[in-house]
Amino acid sequence: MFHLRKEAYSSKTAGLPPGSLVHVGAKKTEKVSITLIEYDEKRFQKNTFENVEEFLNFQDSELVTKSVRWIHVRGLHETAIIESIGKHYHIHHLILEDILNTHQRPKLEDYEDCLFMVMKMFCHNGDEKISAEQLSLILGHGFVISFQEGDKDVFEPVRKRIKMPQSRFRKAGADYLAYAITDTVVDYYFKVIEEIDERLEAVEEDLFAEFSQKVLQEIHELKREIIFLNKAVLPLRGMISTLEKTDSPMVSDMTHIYIRDLYDHVIRIVDIVETFREMATSLLDIYHSGLSNKMNEIMKVLTLIATIFIPLTFIAGIYGMNFKYMPELEWRWGYPMIWLVMIVIGIVMIIYFSKKKWL
Amino acid sequence: MFHLRKEAYSSKTAGLPPGSLVHVGAKKTEKVSITLIEYDEKRFQKNTFENVEEFLNFQDSELVTKSVRWIHVRGLHETAIIESIGKHYHIHHLILEDILNTHQRPKLEDYEDCLFMVMKMFCHNGDEKISAEQLSLILGHGFVISFQEGDKDVFEPVRKRIKMPQSRFRKAGADYLAYAITDTVVDYYFKVIEEIDERLEAVEEDLFAEFSQKVLQEIHELKREIIFLNKAVLPLRGMISTLEKTDSPMVSDMTHIYIRDLYDHVIRIVDIVETFREMATSLLDIYHSGLSNKMNEIMKVLTLIATIFIPLTFIAGIYGMNFKYMPELEWRWGYPMIWLVMIVIGIVMIIYFSKKKWL
Amino acid sequence: MFHLRKEAYSSKTAGLPPGSLVHVGAKKTEKVSITLIEYDEKRFQKNTFENVEEFLNFQDSELVTKSVRWIHVRGLHETAIIESIGKHYHIHHLILEDILNTHQRPKLEDYEDCLFMVMKMFCHNGDEKISAEQLSLILGHGFVISFQEGDKDVFEPVRKRIKMPQSRFRKAGADYLAYAITDTVVDYYFKVIEEIDERLEAVEEDLFAEFSQKVLQEIHELKREIIFLNKAVLPLRGMISTLEKTDSPMVSDMTHIYIRDLYDHVIRIVDIVETFREMATSLLDIYHSGLSNKMNEIMKVLTLIATIFIPLTFIAGIYGMNFKYMPELEWRWGYPMIWLVMIVIGIVMIIYFSKKKWL
Amino acid sequence: MFHLRKEAYSSKTAGLPPGSLVHVGAKKTEKVSITLIEYDEKRFQKNTFENVEEFLNFQDSELVTKSVRWIHVRGLHETAIIESIGKHYHIHHLILEDILNTHQRPKLEDYEDCLFMVMKMFCHNGDEKISAEQLSLILGHGFVISFQEGDKDVFEPVRKRIKMPQSRFRKAGADYLAYAITDTVVDYYFKVIEEIDERLEAVEEDLFAEFSQKVLQEIHELKREIIFLNKAVLPLRGMISTLEKTDSPMVSDMTHIYIRDLYDHVIRIVDIVETFREMATSLLDIYHSGLSNKMNEIMKVLTLIATIFIPLTFIAGIYGMNFKYMPELEWRWGYPMIWLVMIVIGIVMIIYFSKKKWL
Amino acid sequence: MFHLRKEAYSSKTAGLPPGSLVHVGAKKTEKVSITLIEYDEKRFQKNTFENVEEFLNFQDSELVTKSVRWIHVRGLHETAIIESIGKHYHIHHLILEDILNTHQRPKLEDYEDCLFMVMKMFCHNGDEKISAEQLSLILGHGFVISFQEGDKDVFEPVRKRIKMPQSRFRKAGADYLAYAITDTVVDYYFKVIEEIDERLEAVEEDLFAEFSQKVLQEIHELKREIIFLNKAVLPLRGMISTLEKTDSPMVSDMTHIYIRDLYDHVIRIVDIVETFREMATSLLDIYHSGLSNKMNEIMKVLTLIATIFIPLTFIAGIYGMNFKYMPELEWRWGYPMIWLVMIVIGIVMIIYFSKKKWL
Repeated sequence: MFHLRKEAYSSKTAGLPPGSLVHVGAKKTEKVSITLIEYDEKRFQKNTFENVEEFLNFQDSELVTKSVRWIHVRGLHETAIIESIGKHYHIHHLILEDILNTHQRPKLEDYEDCLFMVMKMFCHNGDEKISAEQLSLILGHGFVISFQEGDKDVFEPVRKRIKMPQSRFRKAGADYLAYAITDTVVDYYFKVIEEIDERLEAVEEDLFAEFSQKVLQEIHELKREIIFLNKAVLPLRGMISTLEKTDSPMVSDMTHIYIRDLYDHVIRIVDIVETFREMATSLLDIYHSGLSNKMNEIMKVLTLIATIFIPLTFIAGIYGMNFKYMPELEWRWGYPMIWLVMIVIGIVMIIYFSKKKWL
Repeated sequence: MFHLRKEAYSSKTAGLPPGSLVHVGAKKTEKVSITLIEYDEKRFQKNTFENVEEFLNFQDSELVTKSVRWIHVRGLHETAIIESIGKHYHIHHLILEDILNTHQRPKLEDYEDCLFMVMKMFCHNGDEKISAEQLSLILGHGFVISFQEGDKDVFEPVRKRIKMPQSRFRKAGADYLAYAITDTVVDYYFKVIEEIDERLEAVEEDLFAEFSQKVLQEIHELKREIIFLNKAVLPLRGMISTLEKTDSPMVSDMTHIYIRDLYDHVIRIVDIVETFREMATSLLDIYHSGLSNKMNEIMKVLTLIATIFIPLTFIAGIYGMNFKYMPELEWRWGYPMIWLVMIVIGIVMIIYFSKKKWL
Repeated sequence: MFHLRKEAYSSKTAGLPPGSLVHVGAKKTEKVSITLIEYDEKRFQKNTFENVEEFLNFQDSELVTKSVRWIHVRGLHETAIIESIGKHYHIHHLILEDILNTHQRPKLEDYEDCLFMVMKMFCHNGDEKISAEQLSLILGHGFVISFQEGDKDVFEPVRKRIKMPQSRFRKAGADYLAYAITDTVVDYYFKVIEEIDERLEAVEEDLFAEFSQKVLQEIHELKREIIFLNKAVLPLRGMISTLEKTDSPMVSDMTHIYIRDLYDHVIRIVDIVETFREMATSLLDIYHSGLSNKMNEIMKVLTLIATIFIPLTFIAGIYGMNFKYMPELEWRWGYPMIWLVMIVIGIVMIIYFSKKKWL
Repeated sequence: MFHLRKEAYSSKTAGLPPGSLVHVGAKKTEKVSITLIEYDEKRFQKNTFENVEEFLNFQDSELVTKSVRWIHVRGLHETAIIESIGKHYHIHHLILEDILNTHQRPKLEDYEDCLFMVMKMFCHNGDEKISAEQLSLILGHGFVISFQEGDKDVFEPVRKRIKMPQSRFRKAGADYLAYAITDTVVDYYFKVIEEIDERLEAVEEDLFAEFSQKVLQEIHELKREIIFLNKAVLPLRGMISTLEKTDSPMVSDMTHIYIRDLYDHVIRIVDIVETFREMATSLLDIYHSGLSNKMNEIMKVLTLIATIFIPLTFIAGIYGMNFKYMPELEWRWGYPMIWLVMIVIGIVMIIYFSKKKWL
Repeated sequence: MFHLRKEAYSSKTAGLPPGSLVHVGAKKTEKVSITLIEYDEKRFQKNTFENVEEFLNFQDSELVTKSVRWIHVRGLHETAIIESIGKHYHIHHLILEDILNTHQRPKLEDYEDCLFMVMKMFCHNGDEKISAEQLSLILGHGFVISFQEGDKDVFEPVRKRIKMPQSRFRKAGADYLAYAITDTVVDYYFKVIEEIDERLEAVEEDLFAEFSQKVLQEIHELKREIIFLNKAVLPLRGMISTLEKTDSPMVSDMTHIYIRDLYDHVIRIVDIVETFREMATSLLDIYHSGLSNKMNEIMKVLTLIATIFIPLTFIAGIYGMNFKYMPELEWRWGYPMIWLVMIVIGIVMIIYFSKKKWL
């Protein structure tokens, strides 16, 4: 499901000066699209552009009010677009570099005139698979710019809520918008958690049915994904915590209360992921214990059969010898007696094993 | 006993705006009931309502004194009731959302005009089973509002103590009432601990009687419950600690001493739960060691029997061959001699094993 | 030796108001005795009472000087006595409750007019067994009140040192007395440590002699006791540390230096207990490694015998068949040849095993 | 690849006074070379010396401007050179000692007139092997002196960027140069990480192909290298963190932003190394689980064969006995009947095993 | 090598008043010797005494200058000497007690007029064995008093450096002397580390040669010594750290820089010891993995032989039966046919095993 190793790092930019704009990561969408939403207490306006000049021209000519602007860019592989927008909004080139390098760990950076946030976002990609991509978010005075790797539209609910005239958005500022976007991202984490939980349960059921290499691999697979999730969630917690405590004038008191609530959600996710880790470890323990148990049972049967029949076979072997002078062979009751001896030995052994609780 | 996974999280509210009032969690009771207790140094009055309008009307008309009011709501699935009460007492909508989402981790939130606490509560549900539910508690100026998922009445002892005219409650404020409710919840933790302890002891006894898959599952079951308990207790400790250190004007100096005592109890619970964890781990170790020991013993018997009889059987096999020219077979004392050889081999082997301490 | 589980908690007081005086814990002595020692630079006076009224009357009439008073109570099951003393010295009812509940974890509480300390004390009980009991200690202005569960007198050395006219006690205040009592308690920890050390050494010797279930149980038993000791010692360290840093006017500068020394002792105990833990874990590892080694050796012997003789027995079986037309059987040198073949096979196998270092 | 043990410490200098200049570590290059780069907004000048006097003379005569100077020394075994430079730049003798002892852990030391940094540097050495060496860096007012153990030139990209007239270097001070050097070093860490990652993947593939001792050794080898990397990276993080927070006047505000970015990179490296550790541990777990699984399967086959045929062989042995009076032998249908009995026993056993899921 | 348990604690002093002067620990030398060194910028004077009166008289009469005095006492069993010196220099009796109790953990205590340090010191004792002893050090105004358990002279290098007229000692104060002594002690730690490293390497080589109980014991032995070393080093780090941060007027700014350097060394030791721990754990892992691997191989051979020959032996057994009517026995090609059947079975089995990769 996740591909930690291929995504976690890259040396593509080694040797380049800091702030070089190189897109690091897989190309997740074909075309780049820019969505501009502008709203204030009375107005709501949405425009979509597929071309950065068009967008910049539109901005220059029309956007003059003091409303909140949300520029949402999907697709990162055309670095020229990112650069143009960056130049237009006076964004530090280190921020632009971070946006393009999609192997960032979640973080919040406080630049003088804006807050920069990066986080991992999970969403359903066409089929049932969940994929991870990076979301970068710049909160400036009166605007939010967000950059998304893929082209999956996960922020429709946010737009719907903005559209509603009586919505809380209309009275709040850009900080509330940034909060709402982050909140939507965090909500998707719960979906991932649900999915992992279902798989954990499925594995648990399999576990009691059979001890196959396949189950083992599935557990290890799950464990790795949980570790990956953990690596995404722990810095996210740190980021939200920093956001909660920030005294940046860009975040209003009212929004702070919502961020506290968001922080609470993230802590719950961290808790659950930790529980998942313990459960995965526990499943491995159960697997190994079960395997040992089974081995033990198998060994007991082997030992039982072997220790009973090996001596008996030996006795039969004795009287299969061809010595000329073996008096027992001539006895009238030799054969029945030998049966008796064997049965007695067998019963004694079984009693012995029963006492030792090996049976 | 506990159902961690089904309760720990939910994506029911994903995509909804924050503060949306949706009841997340199982419906734990059929009807909602509201109990209103009002007392001051001289008066004690108790009323029960099954209808929120009735309750609100009653309040508006009659409650005008400066006494302490305790509104206790059992059952959360009718969100309209929670909403009405919330509106009446000017409670922040994020608090209401938290009350309804019963997957909260224990926490304390300091709103300007009230303290909001959430915790897990354990109680006996009809039969012998202990179940966990969520208790939310709002401490405001002169009132406490508590919300409980189920309809089990666990706070009767508190009410009894309030009723007593000379009780400490009568002179103390709403903060002492909040403390007393929390204290009652914490006391129930000790009951859960006792139950787990009994089961740990039972498993320990079973452990020395047999090494079955069943015992193993019971240990893992216990371990999971202990982990669940831990997850409930650790944030509870943090919550009580915050409460102890709060400088909120709503908590008096006198109550602070009681909260310190309560904190002490919670620390003891944390300690015991940690000990339980170590014990469960230790039991697993003992289980595996015991299993290895047993395996070892079984292997020793198998080896003993096999290594003694396999060579002897081979010898018997030799003289069971039908070669025409086998001089030994013709010897007068061949048969007794072969017995002698076998007995000597057997004795030598037994001596060897005794020396190696394998016997 | 220790009985962690039966002592660590209790729900006896669940539902009772805080401060209810109920004796929680086993009754460790038959009769309660009260010892009063009073001393100043010139005087030393010791009185023993078996009756609380007698004690209180005595106090009221005679104790008027500014000397240091030490009231030592042995036996906790008569709550009336504790209550009377508590009332006489204006002790907070939460302190009295803690004194009676003998499942406290070591702690120090700073009340306005006194310091309250609880700790676990170890002492020899008649026979060679060491038992744990709780010691509570109240340090007030000019007096120390100490409560002990059992009736074993462990503080005789302290009394002797007080009696000596030139002793440091005579010039110091009640704080030095409290320090001296605690120091005596801590000194006993070293005895417990010595005992555990001896047992660890004994187990280690046993370990190399045999791998029995008994040794395993002894190690687990030791481990549990070490955990118990750890649970007593860690909060004790916290307590002494708090005491060292306290700025309570009741503790003089001179005594602070002694408390620092005491803290040092406790840290050493913590260190040793931690080392013990690691040693117990290490012993378990050695046990399991040794067991695996032995299993390995046993398996090697089994494999050696089986793999050599099974093929040989098969060959013997071949020529034990009764087919009418088996040319080998008629050969003159068939029998010696078959012996040759068998010996060659045996030697080849032994060489193979030697090369593989399985022999 | 790495040689932790031979490099991590040395007692060569034991007993010497602190500050004694002894080169501790392997000699990593034949000749020592000194490169001097001097630049300001307009000028860029580069000179290389192989002789310290030449270098010092050059400096005295020519370097009088207020530009930034970068002195880069490759090769540490000629202590006289280090000493001369140290004297010329008034560098504390403890710094010089640290430069020569190449077993330093990464650290930053704030001397009054300079910042001293030590770090581990990785680079490709001729063939494909990556080797670790020590880089020391002194940041003074207007100059950076860097000392490198080996003679591999890894800072060419930095020089190229300095050379470009419009480069950021030209306006920034020596602090930006120090940052750029450190950044280059950190970038190489990503290469090491990539290499380890490839080897981890290769091992993982091998793991599912076979369970050989070789794979095991490779995993342990990797684990050791990851531990070594961790030991280099963790103090590096501390060092960069200190650098970020330093209020030294030598580091400008502008450079601080770049150091924050660098810190971010280091944190990502720490994260990845930690993930590697978990993966290596996980691989070991998978190895052991797989081995147990295989053992289990083998045991099952052995048990199956043995438990089916041992009883049957016994029966055959019975009728191989040579007793005179064995009625069954005379029966007309004795032989077919015994076959029937054997087949029935075999089938019953197979059914039994199938039910137990051992087949 | 080390004898942790016998040295780590003692109850010899239980019950005694604090500050009682009892020598706790083994007597490590026969005679006590006192060395007095006195030096200032111009003078250097060294005297050795074997008698405390002689020493005290000497002091009273001759030492009047403002030079630095170093009194070094070797041998602790004559408590009277320690007491006399203590009285002469007004040393707190708790310090004297700590000097005599050689089971101290390394610590630094700040008394008003002196700094008291205790640490573990390692040195070669005649033969090749390294032994641990305690070094106590009192740094007062203008003097250092050091107490050593044994009589091994390890501080000769320090004396030599003091003797040199141009040495740094001559200008520095007593604090630099205290630093130099501690530095010498710390340098010896590197020797111990080297020794352990060599043994670790030796064990590692042995490990791949054989899996004997002896190797296992050696690893456990090493692990214990590493733990012991860790217990000595961790508090040493704390001690040096406290010393570095102390604002005691007795430590000059110049010395602080040297202490920072010393602290650096100690941190490196801590790092290496931690690495050793991980290596020892890793060696144990390798041991167990190797053992499992070997067991697995052995089991495979056993299974191979047994599963091939057991069925064949059964077939041979069949035709060894003596039934009167066994038609196969009469067949002309019966014997060759049975050989054919057996060979086919054998080949099929070998192919099966090859496919399963068990061969």
